[in-house]
This record gives sequence, structure tokens and C-alpha cells, in this order.
Amino acid sequence: MTPLNALDLVPAALEGNRRALARLLTAVEDRADGCDQALAALFPHTGRAWRIGVTGAPGTGKSTLVTALARHYRAEGRTVGILAVDPTSPFTGGAILGDRIRMRDLAGDPGVFIRSLAARGSLGGLSTATSDLARALDACGYEIVLIETVGAGQNEVAVAAMAQTTIVVEAPGLGDEIQAIKAGILEIADVLAVNKADHPGAPQAVRALRTMIETGHPASRASLVGHHGRLIAAPAAETGGPLWVPPILETVATSGRGVAELANAIERHRLHLVGAGELTAIERQQIVLELLNRMRDRLVARVLSQLPDDALSEAAASVQFRETDPAAAVEQLIARAGWPDAEAVPS
Amino acid sequence: MTPLNALDLVPAALEGNRRALARLLTAVEDRADGCDQALAALFPHTGRAWRIGVTGAPGTGKSTLVTALARHYRAEGRTVGILAVDPTSPFTGGAILGDRIRMRDLAGDPGVFIRSLAARGSLGGLSTATSDLARALDACGYEIVLIETVGAGQNEVAVAAMAQTTIVVEAPGLGDEIQAIKAGILEIADVLAVNKADHPGAPQAVRALRTMIETGHPASRASLVGHHGRLIAAPAAETGGPLWVPPILETVATSGRGVAELANAIERHRLHLVGAGELTAIERQQIVLELLNRMRDRLVARVLSQLPDDALSEAAASVQFRETDPAAAVEQLIARAGWPDAEAVPS
Repeated sequence: MTPLNALDLVPAALEGNRRALARLLTAVEDRADGCDQALAALFPHTGRAWRIGVTGAPGTGKSTLVTALARHYRAEGRTVGILAVDPTSPFTGGAILGDRIRMRDLAGDPGVFIRSLAARGSLGGLSTATSDLARALDACGYEIVLIETVGAGQNEVAVAAMAQTTIVVEAPGLGDEIQAIKAGILEIADVLAVNKADHPGAPQAVRALRTMIETGHPASRASLVGHHGRLIAAPAAETGGPLWVPPILETVATSGRGVAELANAIERHRLHLVGAGELTAIERQQIVLELLNRMRDRLVARVLSQLPDDALSEAAASVQFRETDPAAAVEQLIARAGWPDAEAVPS
Repeated sequence: MTPLNALDLVPAALEGNRRALARLLTAVEDRADGCDQALAALFPHTGRAWRIGVTGAPGTGKSTLVTALARHYRAEGRTVGILAVDPTSPFTGGAILGDRIRMRDLAGDPGVFIRSLAARGSLGGLSTATSDLARALDACGYEIVLIETVGAGQNEVAVAAMAQTTIVVEAPGLGDEIQAIKAGILEIADVLAVNKADHPGAPQAVRALRTMIETGHPASRASLVGHHGRLIAAPAAETGGPLWVPPILETVATSGRGVAELANAIERHRLHLVGAGELTAIERQQIVLELLNRMRDRLVARVLSQLPDDALSEAAASVQFRETDPAAAVEQLIARAGWPDAEAVPS
């Protein structure tokens, strides 16, 4: 709980008060009092930022590349918000990587706002919180929002579902064994960056990626569809617009080599989405996914808030002793929480 | 849809009819007609199997090790069910790894039942389906259920939450860069296997793991707690029983070296859980997590089933045009789906 209600922080944050913004982001992340109202008040001010997801395996130099991109945008006079999603264990909350020191170079710049998020584990919350924070930065005038995630798993997928341009960062020499991880992550890439391009294996890594893209890459972003059965049709298929083939850029984030070209590729992707008329459809899909995520979290929170503290544990005991099967236990909990007519709903 | 109702398959499956079991598992995975009733009918027969999760990065030889463990248990006369959770992209459903060929060695054995599952993506379903299939194998008399997952992300966590013993498989030579992934996965390990132990880097890998465990490993499984704020207390802390320090085993799955020792470590872990009185508390926690997962899926399915097909897409449009903020849109959808008193619930 913050001493102030989160809503009270909104006017100052919108006027550019960094301290108010920092407290507001904390309130949003902690789901403190007034945070839904604060987000509702911020919401009409959103829609101006370009959200760029940056993801890839550990060791690729993502954080350094995010820093280099931020410097590039600052040199162009654009303001930059950075959300770094820490790859913490969902069990312990302990951070794994500690290599964000370079980001501190940007810390004195009033046109940059950096925030690390703790991953919240499989019980949800990460993607909703990340969306909310990205929207808050957008509302408060940050023109570029860079969202960095680590690893190969659901996190990147969640980030691709909230970024307009997703950059997948690779690096030479990480071993063939993680190619399998890469294959999964490639599907969400709008732009590929082979970082550490001054290392000997770089041309080989570029060739391997090129082959993977030429042989197997689906029409970019069209694959966001199908994620949930009863949603909406694929924009690429509907508009018949030109396909976007993810370009492969070589970068050396530590020296800045290739960073301008990377920013240029991001801009070309933005122009492609706007020009092909895909942006609206993609955003619509992203919002559908976001609403489903929020609904999931909200519904469980609502059920739990309507039940006595020990109801869940009692239900688990009943399952454990084989008195109730899990599906029936869940229906009973939902009914107890006051949502009638469970039986009337088809399974 | 299967031609038969899933419930009709239960008696034959319980009597050991493999074809009935295969169809039943498919019906459960597809959420076909009668599958909830079938699971309810199977449920009283569960509780005899020991569920072993086997996880680790690609390239560690997990599938081969699972096969070797299955052979070991078969030689002891125990029946074995294997669930292999494919590391498919949540977007495309395309499988990444194809190295389960060795498992076919077991395919002619009537005491072994193998099933691959497609991962269902971030919109849920994987862990619930995996639990359901594991329970079905348990009910139908498989004494050991091996659950194999790939990667470093939420999947392993989900599997650790449904296995009684979780084995994390490592291998030498995968590069220091993935140590960061390993650190996260180590927290769920009850037993560590350094596979490919005939490779030169094996002693070094064992040493590195030993250091990580000695310096940082939390009391085994106590960390399952804290996953959700209002659940239950840590069993280790409550019982004051002896801590389990994950043993590190060297294996060469292709030759079978170390596999008997690995099975022995699994058995020692089982005896530890039983002896320390932790098994009941851990199972209770696992069931709580499972009920929350099921509740999440069930509630969203219920809301969607109560809404017109275009309600979600209309709500997304309203958010996209900045007429409604996302949290308000979700509340409106829930209210429209017939759950009253949304306002009465604290946020």
C-alpha cells in the first residue's frame, strides 16, 4: 500500500513528474489501492507509443542491445521507457541475471525511464502487469517503450502479444543444442538481430537463421491467430497485403555497430504494419488476448475473495482423500462463490 | 468428438484394454463428450502411481533417459506410463524436437503405455490435461508415470507441481550461457542427473551443480509454497523433518550406466517424503495449485460460453478506440456473462 491513493499520482505523472510516475508504476505493479482507477484515468492518454519487445536466450546481450537502442532513440530526440522483465523463478522470486549494469548509463537522462519487473509465476499477473506498465509509460509521454524479456518460454510469447514490433536477439556460439529453443522463438520475430556480430561464428549464425526463415517462417504475425479457438481471423489472410519477412540484422551492441540499422528495420516494420492495414487487426487481436488474460486473473481473484480462507484448502483435502474429483471440486467452489447455474453451462 | 461417449470407455480401460485407454486419453485431451464424467469415474481408482517429472534443456538426452528408466522399471516388473509433453510453439502447434524414436523400443511392451501431448500455449490447458492424463494412467494400473517436458519455462514448473519426484537432467558441454536457465530449473529438482556422463566435461558439470546446490538450493520443495499468497504453510517448516538435498547422479542413458542408481535415488526421495511426513502436505499443495489452474480455465470457458460470439471482439474494439479501459471491459464481460455483483467485490 502506498500512502497516497494511486489515482492521486496520475496528474503529476502525466505532467512529467518522474517521482510520481515511479510511485504510480509501483502502485500498479503491487495492485495497490486505486490502481484500477489510476489506469482508467491514464488510459485515454495512451496510444502514442511504439512498443518494441526484445527477447532471446540468456547470453545474447539483449540488455546491452536495449541500452544501445535507447541511446539511438535518445540521440534522435525521442523519449524512451524500458521495462525489463526479470527471469525470476516463479517459486522463489529470486532474480537470475544481474547484467543490467550497463543500463545505468541511461539512468541520469530525464528522457529515459527504466523499470524492472519481477516475473510473477505461472499463476498469472506478469503479462497483465506488463501491459499496464507499458500503457502508463505511453500515457506519460514515452514515445518508445522497450520491453525486454529473457529465456525461451511463455514470457516471450506474452511480450510478443503486447509489442507491435518484436525483436528476437541471437548470438553466435551459444551451441547447436539451443537451436530447438530458437525455432520456437523465431515464430514471434518481426526483426532478428544477431548480436555479438564481431565474433567468428556470426556469419554462420546469420546463415542458419536465414535458412530457418526461408524454409519455415510463417507469414509474420498471422500466427497470432489460432491461439484461442473462437477469436478472430488472420489479418494477413484477410487483407491480402504484402507479407513481412523478418530481416536479419548484425549488431555489436557494446560498440553500437548495426544499431542504427536495427532501428531502421523497426521503423520499416512499423511502416509495413501501417501501410498494409494490419496494425488495427493485430492490435485488436492483442487486446483480445489481453482481455482473456485479465479475465482469467480477475475471475479467480473474485472467486477467492468470495470464499472463506480455508475453502480452497478444504476442497484440496476432499480431492486428496478421493471424496471429490478435481473438476467437481472446482464447480463446487465456483458455485459457493456465488456464480449460479453451473450445471446449465455445457462442459 | 469420439463416436463413443468417453465414459463408455472407462470400464474396458480399467480392465487393461489398451485400445480403450488410448481412446480415453484422446477423449480427455480433446475434451470430448463425457470426458468429465469419465475422469470422475476413473478418479476413485487413482493414488497408486508414483509420478516422476523429468525435465531439462534440449540436448540433454531426457527422452533417452526416460526410456532407460522405463526399461529399468520394466525389468523390476513394474508397469510404466510415459507422458511426453511436446515443446510446441503456443502459436503454431508445431513440434520442435523429433528425437523420441528410441522410445519406440518400448512400444511393443504391454506393460508400457506412451502418450505425447501437444503443449497448448499460454491460454492454459496443458497442465490440466497433463494432470488428467497422469491420473488416467494411474487409475488404469500404471505404477510409475514418467512425465517428460522440455525447455526452461513454465512447463517444467507445471510438471514439478504435479510430480512427486522431479528429475532435472543436465549434460556437459551445453555452454555456460545456459547456466542462467539452469539456475531457475534447479529450484524444482529433487534429483539431478548429469547425463552423457561419458563426455569429457562431465566432472566439471557435476562440480558446478554441486556448488550451486551447496550455496543456493532452498530446502527442497518448501519453495512450492508462496506461489499464491493465501494458500498454505511450508511443510518442511511445519514438520521440522529432515531436509532433502538433491543428489547428483551421473548417467549415460544410451548405455544404461547409472540408471539403476538414478532409480534408487528416486526411491530414496519417495521414502524421504513418506518418512518425513511431507507427502501429504506436498500433495495438498499440488492439488491446490491444480484446482486454481482448473478454476481459471473453467471460469473463462464459462464466461465465453455465456456470451455471444462477437462479445469479446466488440469489447476489444471498444478498448482499441479508447472508449473503455481494459479492466472495465473485463468487468462488463463478466457481468454480461451473468455473474452479478461485480461492484461488490474488492479489487
